[in-house]
Amino acid sequence: MKITLIGAGNVAWHLGQAFCQAGHQIAEVWSRSPSNAQELSKILPHSHINEDLYLADSEAELFVIAVKDDAIGSVVEQLILPENALLVHTSGTKSLAELEHWVEVYSDVPLQLGVFYPLQTFSKQAAINFDEVPICVEAANTHTEEILIALAQSVSEVAYLVNSQERRMLHLAAVFACNFTNHLWALTQDMLEEADLDFSLLKPLIKETTRKALRAEHPAEVQTGPARRHDHSTIDKHKALLRNEPENYQKIYKQLTDSILGYYDESESF
Amino acid sequence: MKITLIGAGNVAWHLGQAFCQAGHQIAEVWSRSPSNAQELSKILPHSHINEDLYLADSEAELFVIAVKDDAIGSVVEQLILPENALLVHTSGTKSLAELEHWVEVYSDVPLQLGVFYPLQTFSKQAAINFDEVPICVEAANTHTEEILIALAQSVSEVAYLVNSQERRMLHLAAVFACNFTNHLWALTQDMLEEADLDFSLLKPLIKETTRKALRAEHPAEVQTGPARRHDHSTIDKHKALLRNEPENYQKIYKQLTDSILGYYDESESF
Repeated sequence: MKITLIGAGNVAWHLGQAFCQAGHQIAEVWSRSPSNAQELSKILPHSHINEDLYLADSEAELFVIAVKDDAIGSVVEQLILPENALLVHTSGTKSLAELEHWVEVYSDVPLQLGVFYPLQTFSKQAAINFDEVPICVEAANTHTEEILIALAQSVSEVAYLVNSQERRMLHLAAVFACNFTNHLWALTQDMLEEADLDFSLLKPLIKETTRKALRAEHPAEVQTGPARRHDHSTIDKHKALLRNEPENYQKIYKQLTDSILGYYDESESF
Repeated sequence: MKITLIGAGNVAWHLGQAFCQAGHQIAEVWSRSPSNAQELSKILPHSHINEDLYLADSEAELFVIAVKDDAIGSVVEQLILPENALLVHTSGTKSLAELEHWVEVYSDVPLQLGVFYPLQTFSKQAAINFDEVPICVEAANTHTEEILIALAQSVSEVAYLVNSQERRMLHLAAVFACNFTNHLWALTQDMLEEADLDFSLLKPLIKETTRKALRAEHPAEVQTGPARRHDHSTIDKHKALLRNEPENYQKIYKQLTDSILGYYDESESF
């Protein structure tokens, strides 16, 4: 497929390379930041830079918007595409309906619309095995759906049809599973540094906990700790220790401990 | 060293094998559960089973209590050791002073006391690279400390002197870093299953998030998500979505989101 990348950030960076490796060709690269566009175009054979969003003469079969969620609307506002061009965004939070709305407001020609959302966290420095990145695909009609699923399968072993409501749910789940856990690790490192202890002491335990949770049928099966055991004596000692920490530590400890206590029946505790 | 294992659960299982692989010899194995003692003794060359805690004639130089925290007191109550024997427990939560107290109450002879705490989660089924397990050592005097540090260095590349207060702090930190994150993953899987979505969709993202957090100078540097961006519009949408979920989801979302919002200055948000 001939593909045009609109955006040259972390997502476009990895997606562009994955497309090329799968035998597709990147026609144009556009970015609000000319230096980003240049940097990305340099590593994508035969691609060239488009300085604006006038793409009516493009030979690309697919236009991929890979910009920050809040910038999608203003990109569509400036975008001029060939009639019936296939346009997708790569956002986890924006619905297909939002894209349809912007296109209705701003585009002079009818377009085929979809979503091509790679469910992974990307940064330019970190290499990614794209084979394993789940691609969540959605489209307004079956024909477009088939094109996007085939494209997803060409770059990844995990292609799913996921509608906007499901994608919103996945995004919320990712906040719990990734953003919140990362923040807990940040708080942990601060707490340990305050006590002159090295966070790296905990790293093997964190790795093994993650490994176990992801291998289990359900992470609930491998839950450990005082709340799992309904061990109120240890919980009370922890709460006393936390009196020296900022208030958010105490609140988070209470909330998550209460949630674990409520999750497991006391009679099953060990 | 000649070592006697008191307990044959997950910790003793891995510790016993690591001691043998490092060239130490397990003299006796005792467990409240005879079948556990038998199972462990079978894989530890030359070890034999002691049916009770009468060990006054033992040739072991070190006695390792590796039982559940709450059982340590009653084990010490029954334990009869040679005079000046070296006795350690392997608990993350029990202080050295608690062991000293039990020994003062129950032992007829003076003993050398310490703590030998491997900071890892163990289960019999899962192989562990013991080299990487941090061992936290504490003792009542320098001589014992040196013996235990040498022992720790014989089984692991990461041996630390950690006093009881620091060990308590490490244990609390592990609750945040491991127990709480595991519970978040359990809630995530429930939430996704409820929506007929597969938790395995999120696994590559969880793995990559963990990898990034543990490689960063500080996990706070690689924080992502709506709260990090002070993106209140997405946060409000998430809160609306969560109205259909159990109350603990809403409370946890609010607490952790507020904590992230407070952690990062709005002016630095991107």
